[in-house]
Amino acid sequence: MRYVSRNRPFVIRKGAEEWKARKMWNAKYLEQVMGNQLVNVAMTPLGNADSVVEVEDRDLLFVKPYETEEPFETVLRKIQEQELNLNTAKEPTRYAQTQNDNLRNEYVSLFADCPTTIPFARITLEQDPDAINFWLGNSHSTTALHKDNYENIYVQILGQKHFVLLPPVESACVNEKRVVSATYVPQRSAGDQVSMDCKNDVEEELRAEDLVISIDVPEERVPFATWDPDDLQNNSTRFSKLSRPLRVTLGEGDMLYLPALWYHKVSQSCSPEGICCAVNYWYDLDFAGSFWPLCSFSRSVGLLASGKGSIGEEQSQNDVGDEV
Amino acid sequence: MRYVSRNRPFVIRKGAEEWKARKMWNAKYLEQVMGNQLVNVAMTPLGNADSVVEVEDRDLLFVKPYETEEPFETVLRKIQEQELNLNTAKEPTRYAQTQNDNLRNEYVSLFADCPTTIPFARITLEQDPDAINFWLGNSHSTTALHKDNYENIYVQILGQKHFVLLPPVESACVNEKRVVSATYVPQRSAGDQVSMDCKNDVEEELRAEDLVISIDVPEERVPFATWDPDDLQNNSTRFSKLSRPLRVTLGEGDMLYLPALWYHKVSQSCSPEGICCAVNYWYDLDFAGSFWPLCSFSRSVGLLASGKGSIGEEQSQNDVGDEV
Repeated sequence: MRYVSRNRPFVIRKGAEEWKARKMWNAKYLEQVMGNQLVNVAMTPLGNADSVVEVEDRDLLFVKPYETEEPFETVLRKIQEQELNLNTAKEPTRYAQTQNDNLRNEYVSLFADCPTTIPFARITLEQDPDAINFWLGNSHSTTALHKDNYENIYVQILGQKHFVLLPPVESACVNEKRVVSATYVPQRSAGDQVSMDCKNDVEEELRAEDLVISIDVPEERVPFATWDPDDLQNNSTRFSKLSRPLRVTLGEGDMLYLPALWYHKVSQSCSPEGICCAVNYWYDLDFAGSFWPLCSFSRSVGLLASGKGSIGEEQSQNDVGDEV
Repeated sequence: MRYVSRNRPFVIRKGAEEWKARKMWNAKYLEQVMGNQLVNVAMTPLGNADSVVEVEDRDLLFVKPYETEEPFETVLRKIQEQELNLNTAKEPTRYAQTQNDNLRNEYVSLFADCPTTIPFARITLEQDPDAINFWLGNSHSTTALHKDNYENIYVQILGQKHFVLLPPVESACVNEKRVVSATYVPQRSAGDQVSMDCKNDVEEELRAEDLVISIDVPEERVPFATWDPDDLQNNSTRFSKLSRPLRVTLGEGDMLYLPALWYHKVSQSCSPEGICCAVNYWYDLDFAGSFWPLCSFSRSVGLLASGKGSIGEEQSQNDVGDEV
């Protein structure tokens, strides 16, 4: 409660060590439980899920992954093959990361191995989780710096996650801009939509270079952090040098309290089986009290100071970029 | 804990009803216990303790009361006489309000009737009180709008207190200015100091009109709210009309949690005996987390927006005007 009231992150090392998920989950078990069930998978050419991309003839673009469905065993195998260099073909990077409460939906067979809530979070936040998400990927995927309007309990099951964390007061450092929204699409259907019928054909032969960036229609701009705390010069603001990022790595069984509105960039390392697997619990942010208005105010002032004006009109309780 | 974490005020009606202070204190009891002990008393011509005063040939001045010592029974009697119109002489308004932990010092004989801490505050704030103050005055005294860097538990014993409360996000409404500091001094010694020897003589015959404003030497400026939420036009900023003051009256035995950094203006009504008596507990503000920096930031931005620049350099953990 005291950490949440201070909006301050903490790690409970081995806090999930007794979970059934920690005792049972490995590549073989996941495959047995999920089998050939179709699951959503995000595909990107370079592992850059939900990230800002610079393209020659445009300013920055916010590019979402190509999302499709594949049998779980295919997703798992492709993730492992890429990580362990078992397949020489240059395939897209796959990441199961829908963040739409998928552990209680498409992965519900695995949900039995996880608690339905995190006890300390339930007591502190006085609510049940709004979403519980399952994550499966490899070291090729990195999630760009962003923030979520959720209190987050992040639990590492297999492999490691590497977080770079910036508090909300550093909003003026991240160079938030309204960038044009785009999506990776298979090349053969660029400018067109992949029809449901040909989807499996497309996937069978999809290579990384087949994914091309397609501007969303109608054109839409979304606010997104364009500065990368691992690349201090590019896209910096005059405030970026004042940022003091925290860096923390979650090992297997570790739990992170990632407070609402903290910016985070996330990369990952794999278990010896070539997978990185995690679950996270999202609890609604408490919009009462002074925290939300003060953070929104300091963010708006930072944007004004950067000459970008306020982008408050685009901001909702579900900002774009709410991936972990 | 949840209210403190949201920096949100609340009242516990009759929360102190079982205190010995509530059961025992009345004019006669206070006089018996304190007798003719010398106590500090603040004197002002109009009951305007620690307030901003407009004078003709200067801008605004922050004027502190004339502070002196008198036997407690004198202070008590004069407060009652003024309230009940028992004395036709126009005397200064007296207010015992030192806010220097006086209940554990000059009023220690009365401290036995009060708890040494407020249990819920001790648990929530994880500390003992930094100061416990005794207040004795009448309806002639009003404390101007100000804020304190303390968490405050305010407990009404006799009479009533009327609070006007503004949250810290309304800092841009209160028209904070760096005003020249001054003090009321008895006229015969204006421009000079009252010597210890003649003090009693001065007090015996002091009338309200004998107190004149004297600029402090060396000249000093202190940041102070100049807008009065009960006088919407004068000294307003372009943001003042957005203020939404909360108004709450504490009756006998009521406790108010007055959160740190909330602006408050306080007036009072007397018990039938012609006195208003209260105690308050100050606990240090938690400077960890984002609350303090975000409030300081929004205050500074408000000052910039009002064309006054930042006055952060004058701000310390003990801002001027830390009276309840």
